Amino acid sequence: MRRYQLFGPGKLEATAADVPEPGADEVLIRVRAVSLNFRDLMVFGGRYAQDGVREGLVPCSDGAGEIVAVGSRVDRHAVGDRVACQFMPRWQGGPYEEIYGASALGGGADGMLAEYVVAHQDGVVQVPEHLNFAEAATLPCAAVTAWNALYGGQPMLPGETVLLEGTGGVSLFALAFARMGGARTIAITTRAQKRDRLLALGADAVLAIPETEDWPAAVRSLTDGRGVDHVVEVVGGENVALAGQAARNGGQIHLIGAQSSGQIDPTPLRRRNIALRGIYVGPRTQFEAMNRAIAHHAYRPVVDRVFPFEAASDAFAHLRAQAHVGKVVIEVGAA
Amino acid sequence: MRRYQLFGPGKLEATAADVPEPGADEVLIRVRAVSLNFRDLMVFGGRYAQDGVREGLVPCSDGAGEIVAVGSRVDRHAVGDRVACQFMPRWQGGPYEEIYGASALGGGADGMLAEYVVAHQDGVVQVPEHLNFAEAATLPCAAVTAWNALYGGQPMLPGETVLLEGTGGVSLFALAFARMGGARTIAITTRAQKRDRLLALGADAVLAIPETEDWPAAVRSLTDGRGVDHVVEVVGGENVALAGQAARNGGQIHLIGAQSSGQIDPTPLRRRNIALRGIYVGPRTQFEAMNRAIAHHAYRPVVDRVFPFEAASDAFAHLRAQAHVGKVVIEVGAA
Amino acid sequence: MRRYQLFGPGKLEATAADVPEPGADEVLIRVRAVSLNFRDLMVFGGRYAQDGVREGLVPCSDGAGEIVAVGSRVDRHAVGDRVACQFMPRWQGGPYEEIYGASALGGGADGMLAEYVVAHQDGVVQVPEHLNFAEAATLPCAAVTAWNALYGGQPMLPGETVLLEGTGGVSLFALAFARMGGARTIAITTRAQKRDRLLALGADAVLAIPETEDWPAAVRSLTDGRGVDHVVEVVGGENVALAGQAARNGGQIHLIGAQSSGQIDPTPLRRRNIALRGIYVGPRTQFEAMNRAIAHHAYRPVVDRVFPFEAASDAFAHLRAQAHVGKVVIEVGAA
Amino acid sequence: MRRYQLFGPGKLEATAADVPEPGADEVLIRVRAVSLNFRDLMVFGGRYAQDGVREGLVPCSDGAGEIVAVGSRVDRHAVGDRVACQFMPRWQGGPYEEIYGASALGGGADGMLAEYVVAHQDGVVQVPEHLNFAEAATLPCAAVTAWNALYGGQPMLPGETVLLEGTGGVSLFALAFARMGGARTIAITTRAQKRDRLLALGADAVLAIPETEDWPAAVRSLTDGRGVDHVVEVVGGENVALAGQAARNGGQIHLIGAQSSGQIDPTPLRRRNIALRGIYVGPRTQFEAMNRAIAHHAYRPVVDRVFPFEAASDAFAHLRAQAHVGKVVIEVGAA
Repeated sequence: MRRYQLFGPGKLEATAADVPEPGADEVLIRVRAVSLNFRDLMVFGGRYAQDGVREGLVPCSDGAGEIVAVGSRVDRHAVGDRVACQFMPRWQGGPYEEIYGASALGGGADGMLAEYVVAHQDGVVQVPEHLNFAEAATLPCAAVTAWNALYGGQPMLPGETVLLEGTGGVSLFALAFARMGGARTIAITTRAQKRDRLLALGADAVLAIPETEDWPAAVRSLTDGRGVDHVVEVVGGENVALAGQAARNGGQIHLIGAQSSGQIDPTPLRRRNIALRGIYVGPRTQFEAMNRAIAHHAYRPVVDRVFPFEAASDAFAHLRAQAHVGKVVIEVGAA
Repeated sequence: MRRYQLFGPGKLEATAADVPEPGADEVLIRVRAVSLNFRDLMVFGGRYAQDGVREGLVPCSDGAGEIVAVGSRVDRHAVGDRVACQFMPRWQGGPYEEIYGASALGGGADGMLAEYVVAHQDGVVQVPEHLNFAEAATLPCAAVTAWNALYGGQPMLPGETVLLEGTGGVSLFALAFARMGGARTIAITTRAQKRDRLLALGADAVLAIPETEDWPAAVRSLTDGRGVDHVVEVVGGENVALAGQAARNGGQIHLIGAQSSGQIDPTPLRRRNIALRGIYVGPRTQFEAMNRAIAHHAYRPVVDRVFPFEAASDAFAHLRAQAHVGKVVIEVGAA
Repeated sequence: MRRYQLFGPGKLEATAADVPEPGADEVLIRVRAVSLNFRDLMVFGGRYAQDGVREGLVPCSDGAGEIVAVGSRVDRHAVGDRVACQFMPRWQGGPYEEIYGASALGGGADGMLAEYVVAHQDGVVQVPEHLNFAEAATLPCAAVTAWNALYGGQPMLPGETVLLEGTGGVSLFALAFARMGGARTIAITTRAQKRDRLLALGADAVLAIPETEDWPAAVRSLTDGRGVDHVVEVVGGENVALAGQAARNGGQIHLIGAQSSGQIDPTPLRRRNIALRGIYVGPRTQFEAMNRAIAHHAYRPVVDRVFPFEAASDAFAHLRAQAHVGKVVIEVGAA
Repeated sequence: MRRYQLFGPGKLEATAADVPEPGADEVLIRVRAVSLNFRDLMVFGGRYAQDGVREGLVPCSDGAGEIVAVGSRVDRHAVGDRVACQFMPRWQGGPYEEIYGASALGGGADGMLAEYVVAHQDGVVQVPEHLNFAEAATLPCAAVTAWNALYGGQPMLPGETVLLEGTGGVSLFALAFARMGGARTIAITTRAQKRDRLLALGADAVLAIPETEDWPAAVRSLTDGRGVDHVVEVVGGENVALAGQAARNGGQIHLIGAQSSGQIDPTPLRRRNIALRGIYVGPRTQFEAMNRAIAHHAYRPVVDRVFPFEAASDAFAHLRAQAHVGKVVIEVGAA
């Protein structure tokens, strides 16, 4: 079988390997599509982990495919099932533990950019029937993160208002999940030309930052002065202070972004009883709950562009160029 | 002003009284509409409280109107605001306490079937702008109960499945709130002819009990054998055992109904980790959260029929006849 | 190595087998002690599962020992670690799912009554250092169940009151865990002669049922009429109705017991907003949290009697005789 | 009656007034003791609210006394009851709302430094019997804040570890409440000479900051590298970053302090799934739950010194000098 490995920053090479055999609790997956995240760019550039990226790592956390063989004790899946792997296969439920991170695909462990992978049956979830493999491959990291933000803490309720930032993968999934759950959505964007796209995707209101003098005040104004119940904070850094101004008393800021390392004064969060929740993907139970919602609402993730397996490096370059709206996907083994 | 008082079982009499004056923390409400609940029938018949119904009680918990005067310390409302009273005005938030029940309108305390009432400002909530007074009057008991069932415990999530029973007030509100929150809805009804009405109201599936041999099995079958996440259990008694069979492992049964006093064996609930939650209306925080959802979704409660103030007894008789779908309303002071 | 297998109701036979080899994610445990639960008696008698007990099953869910070998991917444990297995090894966190039950030790899967067992590393937890193996072996089923009751739902708080029933394993653990968390404890017992033992174990009050005319009323009286916040309900059946009378408005009944299949009218639970939670052991996250509490408080589980491996059948007979207070343990491979 | 009023920064004057009359839902309290908080110093200095301190304000939020008269509708209390007022009388339960702050005693509304006050019956709580009035007067602000930190979010469990900072009122209450709930406690202090006092109060470990090179690392080391489950963060500002380093993955930082306005980079909180919760006192339901815990554990708050009513200004000066350990109290109307 073919796969990609990283042999240093930017050195992505296609290599050959034997198809692996599943153990008693494992399944063998014929990978059909892989999607890219910002994290994969960091791994690609050798900047991800503190102790560097392992020589020969198979990159990419997010992929989907079909099960072609199962071990003797497998009871959760069967040959022919259409599945995706979890970002952290050992995180089954409950709060995050450090040990889960060690097994994150395409980071601590080999990832999905290969024609076949084996995985423990409990680290694999069934994907909604109406999704093709490219769409299903977008779910493990960005979608589960967005779900965890809105539903993994004190869950969002219908009639609440959610603030979204930009058009990245997490933000678009959060927009969809907020709408499924009956919330009102306000999106901010640094590019005025993306306003129509966000409205078309269902945002109830869009604020273009360059045209808005004080966007937190504008957000409060859109909520009769109350502020939003949830901020899906994908920027991070000093933007968290602005998110705090836009949030209501007792609101939640779901901190996902690490694009900025700017600083904030945490004091204003105190008096207004705001909670800031660090979010790092989520467990299997959330992935499955999310899939039930995606299935019931027949939601199709926004795919920006699909690259063939041979052009994997082009897919990374496309993501780096930041002109996409939605997920960048690599097709695997179309043959 | 005019009002109604109860002077014994079924003895509802219109009487005259002075318009009350609001205290420093109180508002004076010009009542415009009152809606009836099953509980009001019990009060009407003298069968509600263990120690009987107080002679001269003004009945009815649910009403809406406009504020016409405010006390000196009122800061939550202003003259002209369109409001409803809470079922239990002192239940502001947090868990239920016995003392709240003592102040329940139309039970321990005088109710809403009067042209004017005074109320503590914190026991009064603003109603959504798009609702007329008849619609707003339906909210305090049945709607808040339905909201508490779905969102007051471990909140319902999008993609979950909710089982609803019949076409009573709580069930129709729960159907609407489940849909707002993105759930799949299954309704059961004892009258096959109501199937179309339930489908028109948005139920994803309807089972007519007389045509279904084993309805819990049929419900499980509609959920691929998994069972529903939530049952809004308005029947009670031995029906709770059937609800348990229809629920998934770890599901919730929200126990509202007291129509039956039949018995169940609680043991099957244990092994399947099911939670049975007793529900008794809810606090102001839930009423307000619900109103935000109703406003965002521009939802209009189902009103069966509106009676004039003078025909209040006819409204009680209509409710007793059980042929309604939706809420029965009495208009107050249309003049 | 030696192990026990069941070949029909009551037919427990010692057999020989090869020491198993751990897979890449597995550990090999030298079992040192096994403890018995009421469930093991049911399995022993062939009355446990609907489809009977598998011929040749190695019984017993609860055991502790030391790790003597680890697979190539094991990162959670090391050789020499003192550990216990989980009752349901795949339940890592989050709510219960039906699939976990299939892997319950000594039921769906082979259990711990053997000199060596292999287990997935994530289904094994470190035990507190101050416990000997007999004590550690008592934890997986009864102790985790008691922990889940008090801390797995809406957690018990200091100053709350907990009602406990009898002197079985779950009740004694719940008594200890309630005291660790700063609650007041009231115990009821059908045998007046156990009163002193319960007081010695730290119960704040003990009611002997034969001497108490209306024990729920007596419990309410001990709480100034308010009722208890939590009932750890190990009897089940019609006793649940009495538990409901003893509980406060908004209290929780944690339903564990299946000793009775008597019936109750669920209606009284509704008006008083009581929640009835079915409990079935718990996940690894709870087992680990519990162990931290046991370690901090240097708590030693109550062991009634320890039998040698050769006398395993006598241990079952002793449990069946119901004269024990605390856990019945079988020592394994002391040599 | 006598009372104190503020007529400008530092201008605290004793004045005479009529004893107020309780309204129908109100109680009249004979105040017996008042305790001071850091906030009262800010009010005293005219630095509290953005729009200044109202001329003639009666200061102080925290007081206790006995009920000497009740209004016609009062059912929660009776003459002779020993009570304390809530910091925000209208916050009955559920999440914080901005409107509650407007009624905070000694800030938006007149406070407790008077011989008599009237209060709505639902804004008043019974105090534990074993406390004298000086002790009971310490509870409304500092103690409820500490309780909310540990038990108002995802509640602290036995066996968890709590980090406390210094010897201020909130920290000493949090130390006591953490111990009641069975947690392990680690305290840090900037003054090595306070170590013994903290150990005497029950801290399991104390780190003197001046003697500790990297205190977050030292805290992690005391927890086998895991980090603490809870930080009761009374300093604020840049200290929040250090608190984040001392907390475990998925831990909670309860942000109370506003002593510093320094800045932090929020990014490290994200990856480690840490939640930062702004805390601002708490509702009646928490006050009552806390009182039950204080009563069961017969806990006596740490009172540093009691000043007579006539020496109220000296009490403020003593608090400002920062040499106290525990609460500073003013006796009212001992005659």
